[in-house]
Amino acid sequence: MHNSIELGERKIIELVWKQLERMPKMPVAFGDDVSACDLGDGRLAILKTDMLVDKTDVPLGMSLWQAARKAVVMNISDFAAKGVKPIVMLVSLGLPRKLAERDMREIGKGLNAGVREYGAYVIGGDTNEASDLVISLSLFGIAKKNMLILRSGAKPEDIVAVTGFFGKASAGLKILLDGFKAPQKIRKILVESVLMPHARLKEGLALSMTRAVTASIDSSDGLAWSLHEIVKASNVGFLIDKLPVAKEVERFARINELDPLELTLYGGEEYELVLTVKPRLWEKAEKAVEKVGGKLLPIGRVTAEKRVLLEIHGERRVIEPRGWEHFKSVRI
Amino acid sequence: MHNSIELGERKIIELVWKQLERMPKMPVAFGDDVSACDLGDGRLAILKTDMLVDKTDVPLGMSLWQAARKAVVMNISDFAAKGVKPIVMLVSLGLPRKLAERDMREIGKGLNAGVREYGAYVIGGDTNEASDLVISLSLFGIAKKNMLILRSGAKPEDIVAVTGFFGKASAGLKILLDGFKAPQKIRKILVESVLMPHARLKEGLALSMTRAVTASIDSSDGLAWSLHEIVKASNVGFLIDKLPVAKEVERFARINELDPLELTLYGGEEYELVLTVKPRLWEKAEKAVEKVGGKLLPIGRVTAEKRVLLEIHGERRVIEPRGWEHFKSVRI
Repeated sequence: MHNSIELGERKIIELVWKQLERMPKMPVAFGDDVSACDLGDGRLAILKTDMLVDKTDVPLGMSLWQAARKAVVMNISDFAAKGVKPIVMLVSLGLPRKLAERDMREIGKGLNAGVREYGAYVIGGDTNEASDLVISLSLFGIAKKNMLILRSGAKPEDIVAVTGFFGKASAGLKILLDGFKAPQKIRKILVESVLMPHARLKEGLALSMTRAVTASIDSSDGLAWSLHEIVKASNVGFLIDKLPVAKEVERFARINELDPLELTLYGGEEYELVLTVKPRLWEKAEKAVEKVGGKLLPIGRVTAEKRVLLEIHGERRVIEPRGWEHFKSVRI
Repeated sequence: MHNSIELGERKIIELVWKQLERMPKMPVAFGDDVSACDLGDGRLAILKTDMLVDKTDVPLGMSLWQAARKAVVMNISDFAAKGVKPIVMLVSLGLPRKLAERDMREIGKGLNAGVREYGAYVIGGDTNEASDLVISLSLFGIAKKNMLILRSGAKPEDIVAVTGFFGKASAGLKILLDGFKAPQKIRKILVESVLMPHARLKEGLALSMTRAVTASIDSSDGLAWSLHEIVKASNVGFLIDKLPVAKEVERFARINELDPLELTLYGGEEYELVLTVKPRLWEKAEKAVEKVGGKLLPIGRVTAEKRVLLEIHGERRVIEPRGWEHFKSVRI
């Protein structure tokens, strides 16, 4: 739910959602990364829809192929956070008249590349005329009822962890949109993280098998925001003492006189998993992620006090519930 | 798949879909009213996504509440055609900045009204900023594998049938958009059919239980178009000898010197079911539909010759594969 960050857009969601009758016995609460429907045999149908709109989700410099692939990654990432394998996807396209034939092909190829990268297939959809390029995707998968990782299970003393370093996408966006500079090699890594994001599906699936994870969310709205969402859903607090700043981001920040903490915490457009892990199962979780080629970085621990704090050199400060901001440049 | 009528838009779909790898053993072919995923226990997950964009799907005179409700009906109607009960729905909204708070509430209320009318619930979704009002819905339900009615099962000698009379929506659109006239009482009926469409879900579910239906489609792209779609998927032909012209449409056409056949065949925005029925089970099918308060009108029969013909007073003419046209007026 990208645009939910700005106060205005959170209010919109509230205004719309408030009108909706709640289904009795919903297996997953409204507002988690995915929705679920009970299949009645110990399994859940897992469903997710997310919309990419070019004017807010596609920065200058991103091709249509990349935009279509990114729309898929956005959706897969939420399945990854819940430890659910995506099986099939439906595509609903809003297409501006000005798109050419090769543009359509590029969109089709980008969708296919994204979905096949994670082992799923597109099985249907529809096409419409619209003013923006709109790629609305719905993902379907199946989960065992007792295996699904929600946002709400974090317990005091659990270890807070992430699947990678942060800040690359926000630095990359600053290069693409605001003309910030970086040495060629670093520039490539940072820009690539915006144009070719990857969902941590392998990691999410491996973690789900360990039963070590008590809460999980994807970080598409930024690290700070994701931490706050788990805190809210689990009714706990976090003390973060090891901020996962990417080394390229440290360097980029130094060159451009930017705050690396700001880039790391309040960026967004990153698709790492943010999770809480039972301390006694930490090693099991770590090994499981390493086995599939990933890494699990401890960044702090869950506290009973309902605040999100950052400790640096013994000093504590509040991590604010802010996050991802739209980029306004229209691609097409 | 509304906009697939115009040659241009059909080509778009083809261009995009051609890039997509097909899933092996798809239970439902690409392009049927719904998509399906095998649940592995004799059941299918039934999935459908359809997008409403105000500038092509919302005529002047339709409120936001009605537009949101219509978006739901569009999707439910496809489930109705396949005889599948919708269980849950996901909503992805693209919202123009100019919408006010009460507009959001209206949209939420319209979505809820639509979905509850057919016994389903909204269980999740997301909100985005967009230039158009975009309501992208995904519907989920479960079907027994051997109960799903496809487009492809029509056999020569089957009876072609519909669940209601046609032409009201196209006449209503002419009143709303082009200033055509009708007496107050008829005007109300015709306009109402555009603003408050109903999906034939009860009928579809009842018919599915009879096992009398060999092929089915919803008529949202127009009667002629729907007939051609079944013909194409089933590799048969149709001889239509009893065109289901609504009596209000006869009258409207007379007053405005329009062709009632044109309104009935090539309209669209109507949500009746168009189906083929085994002759020996016709009465069973008819009774099942009547039992739920509906009607089943025989309009012709399936032929081996792959053409769609209309017979009037012994004369035969071709029913063309044309259908629904966009209305270009933007609502907001």
